[in-house]
Amino acid sequence: MAENILNLWVEEHHDTYLTTRFRVLETLFSEQSPYQKVDVVRTAGHGVMLFLDGLAMLSERDEFVYHDMIAHVPLFTHPNPKRVLIIGGGDGGTAREVLRHAGIEHVVMVEIDGMVVDVSRKYLQRTACSLDDSRLELRIEDGIKYMAETRERFDVILIDSTDPIGPAQPLFGSAFYKEVRRVLREDGVVVAQGESPFYMVADQVNILESIKANFARVNLYNYSNLCYPGGLWSFAYGSNGLHPLKDFDPKRVQASRLSFEYYNPDIHRAAFALPQFQKEKHLAILTKL
Amino acid sequence: MAENILNLWVEEHHDTYLTTRFRVLETLFSEQSPYQKVDVVRTAGHGVMLFLDGLAMLSERDEFVYHDMIAHVPLFTHPNPKRVLIIGGGDGGTAREVLRHAGIEHVVMVEIDGMVVDVSRKYLQRTACSLDDSRLELRIEDGIKYMAETRERFDVILIDSTDPIGPAQPLFGSAFYKEVRRVLREDGVVVAQGESPFYMVADQVNILESIKANFARVNLYNYSNLCYPGGLWSFAYGSNGLHPLKDFDPKRVQASRLSFEYYNPDIHRAAFALPQFQKEKHLAILTKL
Repeated sequence: MAENILNLWVEEHHDTYLTTRFRVLETLFSEQSPYQKVDVVRTAGHGVMLFLDGLAMLSERDEFVYHDMIAHVPLFTHPNPKRVLIIGGGDGGTAREVLRHAGIEHVVMVEIDGMVVDVSRKYLQRTACSLDDSRLELRIEDGIKYMAETRERFDVILIDSTDPIGPAQPLFGSAFYKEVRRVLREDGVVVAQGESPFYMVADQVNILESIKANFARVNLYNYSNLCYPGGLWSFAYGSNGLHPLKDFDPKRVQASRLSFEYYNPDIHRAAFALPQFQKEKHLAILTKL
Repeated sequence: MAENILNLWVEEHHDTYLTTRFRVLETLFSEQSPYQKVDVVRTAGHGVMLFLDGLAMLSERDEFVYHDMIAHVPLFTHPNPKRVLIIGGGDGGTAREVLRHAGIEHVVMVEIDGMVVDVSRKYLQRTACSLDDSRLELRIEDGIKYMAETRERFDVILIDSTDPIGPAQPLFGSAFYKEVRRVLREDGVVVAQGESPFYMVADQVNILESIKANFARVNLYNYSNLCYPGGLWSFAYGSNGLHPLKDFDPKRVQASRLSFEYYNPDIHRAAFALPQFQKEKHLAILTKL
């Protein structure tokens, strides 16, 4: 890089021993919301990136990985999803992928922090591009409260949350999943951001046990993106009926005529194959596949 | 961390836009060999780590991932591997995993840089623990020269190399793979360190084309570790006969009575499921699975 260009970097810390730094071309937004610190930067290698409380949430370069995997795995497992609830997901990427499915009639997205939605509309337009879809009901309110009070029911519930610190903490507990069970239709699927199998084993155990306490089936599936520490990350899967592999019909992917950057039927199945260390850590909790 | 402890970090740069930093407790070794800069540090989060020319080669915390996947995928695909050639792999981790297979009679390991072997024996004892196995012939010499001159033949050849800069550069070219083909038995398998599908597409194309020019079959399979930028990384697979899935018999894994931290039969199969963007980038090169 030229000597006269500001050598600006954003730095994310994992624990006290690992730091990831992304070179920044421009800081676009930096404010404290009632819930968290919200920062948006334009980076040299990863496009625009969103940080919440100093942690990278997404980059334009690789957000397709996370959003493909949180949305399409449950939506192609459920035979006929019509109504989807998203808790969190303020950047709009999860809603965008859900709304690509032609059969979807109604999506409720409950994001606690309106500032995240606002900055995504402004600076992450490719991610937030479906937030004005007429099938989407966007509610800026506490997902915990919504879940406790709603009388609506859904085929698929997606917990698109940050780490279990700050506003997302209660989303990892058993009390919350009791409400998820109530709000989910009997043959529904819940999928939740499931943390890192290498670095965040305790968080992963916590969320799996919360699902297990309320659902007949709990599984993990993995994906790899560029922006989260350690590369390998997981989603947690819960259901009282649907088996993520046996009830998955790859013909429905073909019939949808959708194209993806990360997801495909082989990736759907492969994601549930866990490395041996991860499998053994959760042997007593995970449902047999 | 306490205020009076030296706040020491080792920093790895990827391109001009990404940096990963590992907190260092102690620098153990730092010398220039005839081929590259060799550094060994004890880190706060990842045990002892080896760096070559400033790039992380392995950490004690996650080296099992790479070594499981370079060794066991080809060794459980080949029905009866007896003779294995390792080019590079000076830390000894690949040799360690190969030598766990009871049927292995002879392993030749050709490492160009004796300093890498020496520091691994001294500071990475769990990785280098099999370098004195009587079935191992350790040669400190140029792998290119060895490959051009040897009259030996092998069932499996593993190219355990650094990135295609410095001494490893010729290991990515077609001329080298012409020799690999000559030295590999007709029903053999070659597996090579295959770089990052996100960040190093040109290198990945290069190695795949070099294999394709000399073998009937070329494939990619993926793994995720903690120390390489971007998390998701690949191995390239070449063979004139053996299909990495159809010729793989999971019963042989069970019969081996070996236990692994990363590898298992599901992971073997899942590793060949490529994300859609990776599949499409290499559509014209990769052999159908």
